[in-house]
Amino acid sequence: MRILVVNVNTTESITGSIGAQARGAASPGTEIAALTPSFGAESVEGNYESHLAAIAVMEAVREYPERFDAIVQAGYGEHGREGLQELFDVPVVDITEAAASTAQFLGRTYSVVTTLDRTVPLIEDRLRLAGLDSRCASVRASGLPVLDLEGDPAAAVDAITEEAVRAVRDDRAEVICLGCGGMSGLADRVVERTGVPVVDGVTAAVAIAESLVRLGLTTSKVRTYAPPRPKAMTNWPPAASRARLNSTVD
Amino acid sequence: MRILVVNVNTTESITGSIGAQARGAASPGTEIAALTPSFGAESVEGNYESHLAAIAVMEAVREYPERFDAIVQAGYGEHGREGLQELFDVPVVDITEAAASTAQFLGRTYSVVTTLDRTVPLIEDRLRLAGLDSRCASVRASGLPVLDLEGDPAAAVDAITEEAVRAVRDDRAEVICLGCGGMSGLADRVVERTGVPVVDGVTAAVAIAESLVRLGLTTSKVRTYAPPRPKAMTNWPPAASRARLNSTVD
Amino acid sequence: MRILVVNVNTTESITGSIGAQARGAASPGTEIAALTPSFGAESVEGNYESHLAAIAVMEAVREYPERFDAIVQAGYGEHGREGLQELFDVPVVDITEAAASTAQFLGRTYSVVTTLDRTVPLIEDRLRLAGLDSRCASVRASGLPVLDLEGDPAAAVDAITEEAVRAVRDDRAEVICLGCGGMSGLADRVVERTGVPVVDGVTAAVAIAESLVRLGLTTSKVRTYAPPRPKAMTNWPPAASRARLNSTVD
Amino acid sequence: MRILVVNVNTTESITGSIGAQARGAASPGTEIAALTPSFGAESVEGNYESHLAAIAVMEAVREYPERFDAIVQAGYGEHGREGLQELFDVPVVDITEAAASTAQFLGRTYSVVTTLDRTVPLIEDRLRLAGLDSRCASVRASGLPVLDLEGDPAAAVDAITEEAVRAVRDDRAEVICLGCGGMSGLADRVVERTGVPVVDGVTAAVAIAESLVRLGLTTSKVRTYAPPRPKAMTNWPPAASRARLNSTVD
Amino acid sequence: MRILVVNVNTTESITGSIGAQARGAASPGTEIAALTPSFGAESVEGNYESHLAAIAVMEAVREYPERFDAIVQAGYGEHGREGLQELFDVPVVDITEAAASTAQFLGRTYSVVTTLDRTVPLIEDRLRLAGLDSRCASVRASGLPVLDLEGDPAAAVDAITEEAVRAVRDDRAEVICLGCGGMSGLADRVVERTGVPVVDGVTAAVAIAESLVRLGLTTSKVRTYAPPRPKAMTNWPPAASRARLNSTVD
Amino acid sequence: MRILVVNVNTTESITGSIGAQARGAASPGTEIAALTPSFGAESVEGNYESHLAAIAVMEAVREYPERFDAIVQAGYGEHGREGLQELFDVPVVDITEAAASTAQFLGRTYSVVTTLDRTVPLIEDRLRLAGLDSRCASVRASGLPVLDLEGDPAAAVDAITEEAVRAVRDDRAEVICLGCGGMSGLADRVVERTGVPVVDGVTAAVAIAESLVRLGLTTSKVRTYAPPRPKAMTNWPPAASRARLNSTVD
Repeated sequence: MRILVVNVNTTESITGSIGAQARGAASPGTEIAALTPSFGAESVEGNYESHLAAIAVMEAVREYPERFDAIVQAGYGEHGREGLQELFDVPVVDITEAAASTAQFLGRTYSVVTTLDRTVPLIEDRLRLAGLDSRCASVRASGLPVLDLEGDPAAAVDAITEEAVRAVRDDRAEVICLGCGGMSGLADRVVERTGVPVVDGVTAAVAIAESLVRLGLTTSKVRTYAPPRPKAMTNWPPAASRARLNSTVD
Repeated sequence: MRILVVNVNTTESITGSIGAQARGAASPGTEIAALTPSFGAESVEGNYESHLAAIAVMEAVREYPERFDAIVQAGYGEHGREGLQELFDVPVVDITEAAASTAQFLGRTYSVVTTLDRTVPLIEDRLRLAGLDSRCASVRASGLPVLDLEGDPAAAVDAITEEAVRAVRDDRAEVICLGCGGMSGLADRVVERTGVPVVDGVTAAVAIAESLVRLGLTTSKVRTYAPPRPKAMTNWPPAASRARLNSTVD
Repeated sequence: MRILVVNVNTTESITGSIGAQARGAASPGTEIAALTPSFGAESVEGNYESHLAAIAVMEAVREYPERFDAIVQAGYGEHGREGLQELFDVPVVDITEAAASTAQFLGRTYSVVTTLDRTVPLIEDRLRLAGLDSRCASVRASGLPVLDLEGDPAAAVDAITEEAVRAVRDDRAEVICLGCGGMSGLADRVVERTGVPVVDGVTAAVAIAESLVRLGLTTSKVRTYAPPRPKAMTNWPPAASRARLNSTVD
Repeated sequence: MRILVVNVNTTESITGSIGAQARGAASPGTEIAALTPSFGAESVEGNYESHLAAIAVMEAVREYPERFDAIVQAGYGEHGREGLQELFDVPVVDITEAAASTAQFLGRTYSVVTTLDRTVPLIEDRLRLAGLDSRCASVRASGLPVLDLEGDPAAAVDAITEEAVRAVRDDRAEVICLGCGGMSGLADRVVERTGVPVVDGVTAAVAIAESLVRLGLTTSKVRTYAPPRPKAMTNWPPAASRARLNSTVD
Repeated sequence: MRILVVNVNTTESITGSIGAQARGAASPGTEIAALTPSFGAESVEGNYESHLAAIAVMEAVREYPERFDAIVQAGYGEHGREGLQELFDVPVVDITEAAASTAQFLGRTYSVVTTLDRTVPLIEDRLRLAGLDSRCASVRASGLPVLDLEGDPAAAVDAITEEAVRAVRDDRAEVICLGCGGMSGLADRVVERTGVPVVDGVTAAVAIAESLVRLGLTTSKVRTYAPPRPKAMTNWPPAASRARLNSTVD
Repeated sequence: MRILVVNVNTTESITGSIGAQARGAASPGTEIAALTPSFGAESVEGNYESHLAAIAVMEAVREYPERFDAIVQAGYGEHGREGLQELFDVPVVDITEAAASTAQFLGRTYSVVTTLDRTVPLIEDRLRLAGLDSRCASVRASGLPVLDLEGDPAAAVDAITEEAVRAVRDDRAEVICLGCGGMSGLADRVVERTGVPVVDGVTAAVAIAESLVRLGLTTSKVRTYAPPRPKAMTNWPPAASRARLNSTVD
């Protein structure tokens, strides 16, 4: 099977990291195609950028020329999953929801540790709409911007680990969801410091997507996610946009 | 003061109706500038179109060349209000929230009557995130697409009135919010048939926007709606897009 | 139009302040009639006094001899708004709900800063019944009794500002609602110290009442707020009670 | 011990019925003093009358000249219990809450059957504030005014029984709370028709009040129900009011 | 009447304490039969032990050879009350729910103070399912195991009192429920230190059970608590199990 | 990897069906060991039987002599998952939660269709505690006992399909979870009649368990699911109990 894993920002190196993480979690025989949107922000850290990412991700998938079996939207707390579910029949898995859903099988409560404080409300909103908020102990921010995670990984690991420790100690979280991706060693370090299971959204989402495909399950089309009705579109999609496929061989 | 009232679809005649409605509610001295997005769908009736509208509305406002004092997003149940709040300092009022908020001053419960059943979940989600759902008795759909409202107004009025009657009788709604706009006579007819107050989102939103401006209140910028951080954008905004201003003189 | 603004306590100077605040927010052509109940407590800081105020406010409005277009109940967290809605057809706006409803258009969350800790539960209860509690970050008390606000305004401003700062910093409030009125400079000072919008209940309520009147909206009479059924009353209303009108010329 | 059972309306015959019901539930040695307020409406069926009853009940208890050990407020869905808790140290039991609290020990869900539809929202609000709403399957109205219960008991029993049957069958209630009092045979008839336990608020409240007294428990005074602060009162209480004690010998 | 009070662990001395407490709360004429399960753990401090206790309590009651009028399950936060309600017609009162329900008549909010932190989630879950959580300010743990309460009562009293003080001061609890039993002086000490009413679950449950019996109320059998359907059981109940009756004469 | 799939009743043929279903969903290399408890009821349809099943399942797993990597508790709406999580480190997946969690990736709302009406409350309680209830449109019962599913499969399929149709049409469910297992053709028939995805709990649970094992995730042990403290057990486990392994070769 082939799973599209779509980055929400336009930074190729992050798409590369996400793709690598996804491939690490995939079963033999599962191909991961990691996509970078053809337009949008270099990192998504707020509502404007997230709304734009929602559309950019949808266009990226629409432009993908090959057959695929599932879609993973690889942005924490971003808009747009519902649109993907309308446009496509295959299962769509958002990493925010995948992480929370997985965490709920491991402990009574979970916390999310993310990057900037301003993204906390976005994550909280997604969890609420997904009905995954009642066991969420807290969403905590390390204060580090997304791109800094790549620039100074050691400092990022420290900052995130520190918040995870607080979540377990002060908020009584029993599981930690990492609301940021692509850093080797991060999960291990948090496990070591907190003693609780750590869930990475991308790997959780790939596992769920694989399971749904294997069970033959697809998106329900009776109401909320029915295909868009045929209608006239103005100036859309934008000309000359083409998502870039992260071409690392699986 | 000048209030931008932004349609979420690309159909100019609907922008015209919305603008007329807004002007009818505005105080003397308030100028209504009704905008049509430069890209998107001719009507918004689902998540994909709504996500696209979110971005199109934001671009339409960004391109608006004059000063303005408030923004009304004139689509029922659409995404994007949060992004507008990040991009601009002036008050932003979504008509879904304006109608519900107004209805809550008039009766203990309210129902929304909208067009297609598939837009019900979008409206419910917006009300939940806005914390305006606990007094919502129901969101009901007439089954008529947005564009049919213009094509056969009489049938539309009948269908919507019928649902309003059911909301009052079966769901115990004490106020009706009209989740669709631009039809003369609709509100009067529903009042006549149900005996309850009827709130139109566009006029409610204009009144709220005016009030906020008059009270000197602007969007809070400390966290959720802080301005986007400066960052590199790829292929955005799309070239040659320009929102169309509905030029009816006020 | 004429809006009755009814104080909940019997202290004329507070009625004076409330009336002045209301007049400051009113549009040209709107007359504010500020009423003091003819019976009750000099300040309302608890359930007993609040239940009494509920009835006193209703009697004050019943005794008002002229026509009026809307009623503002100017007590934070007090009982009685539902009774006014039964007795009269014109819109009734409670300042607790007006402030919260307005704050929700400005930020994702809001906090209320009030006087005594013992009034916090009353405010929380009103917000819950009004369905306005889910975005309330906290209700905080400065510890100062109502009448001290008048006696030592400088200390009051300090105490309230301090709690507002805590609400923004610790409870993540993005807007502050002032749960106490009549002090010049208070709002400005809180804005200056917190950087977030500050909503005053009386001015918010006047703006909302004006809007409702202008939109031709009145209280729904189908169920909860239907007029009282005709029935025998014993010893009520009390003889010789007459609400005092704060006669400042508009 | 002596328990004050206070009617919320001014109809002596209803006080008599309530008193008799209370005496039927009291243990040997418990004296029931049934009070009629000295002012207010002949029956309480809405917010205005209920707010007035709140104050009238408080005054009735204040005027009671003897020592007492607990207070039962015998009106379904009425305001005012919180004020009584401020004014007095002894336990205060509202019959709405007593019935619901008792019902929750008998079945997973309960319904309330009451008189007029317009009192349903009052009951729902009291249950919500009391935190007793999550197991409430429904509040149903028979459509009969309070005073008709006395006028045509047979019709009243029929109407109420019918709603109880619907609550069990359609709303899946496992227990019925009678939101109206004083009719012999009503509970038996409902039990017979529905097969579920039927809770009468007055008897439930008396039993709870007795238990609280026997366990030596009194109202918490640390915050919400602290005694009113000493302050100047204007024109209150009204002259020449005196609650009437239903003098049936126990 | 006779009330069975069933301990959830197999430690006879705790059954003795519980029985004594129950007898202290019982009315003249009420006989308390305190039972110790014939199998299970010496103390119940987690889910495994609690699930086991659920079954052990049910078997203990099934084996009880005499008639009885009500059952009190005397374990804080334990599973199994629903099963007892299926098996028997008489009222079943769980002490966790009895304490919370009683506390709600005394203050606006309550906190539970219990033994080990690991039992907090069990108590929270029971309160949530019982619909008694919305007024629960907190469930706090003293950190002392159940059996230590007996070993070093003075230290236990100190530790529990300390948490009660924190609950009142930091969590704004207005009533304290003791989530552990059998220590003389504990309630008095907590009252003295906190100034709020203190509810003991066992005595509250006995009072409620007595009331239900006196009012002639029994468990609803229409749905959730209908008797188990007749069916083949394998290897159950275990041979040679026999609950021990704490034989203290009443 | 080896996954234990534990039936909650003592009927071997049901264990056989469950095992077959599980094997159908397992990946190559995953061994399914299907266990039948050594004590308990032939079918679990209520609280008493479910509490007993909770303990019987735990003992069955404790007695299992080989290494295993995950546990699936294969009873819909049963107690006990938390106890398994305390006793073992490996992931524990309850089929009620697995089905709901999976359904939430496929549609906005889901309904559960189960056997007897009396099991509906158990399922609702489990979903509530698991935080998976907010997107549950309804739990519906076909009225057929568990064992009839085996006796007359055709009638069972009809009855269950009928409720599924009602859930989609009347409750607006977008996905159906089958709250009963082991019937070939059931899922296909429901898909055919409703047009929505159908989730079987056993297969969903196996897929989730496999994913958790593959991602190296285990149960959090910091608080709620910490191992039981060492303590004296009386008469437990019962002598001579031994779970029966369904020995079908994989």
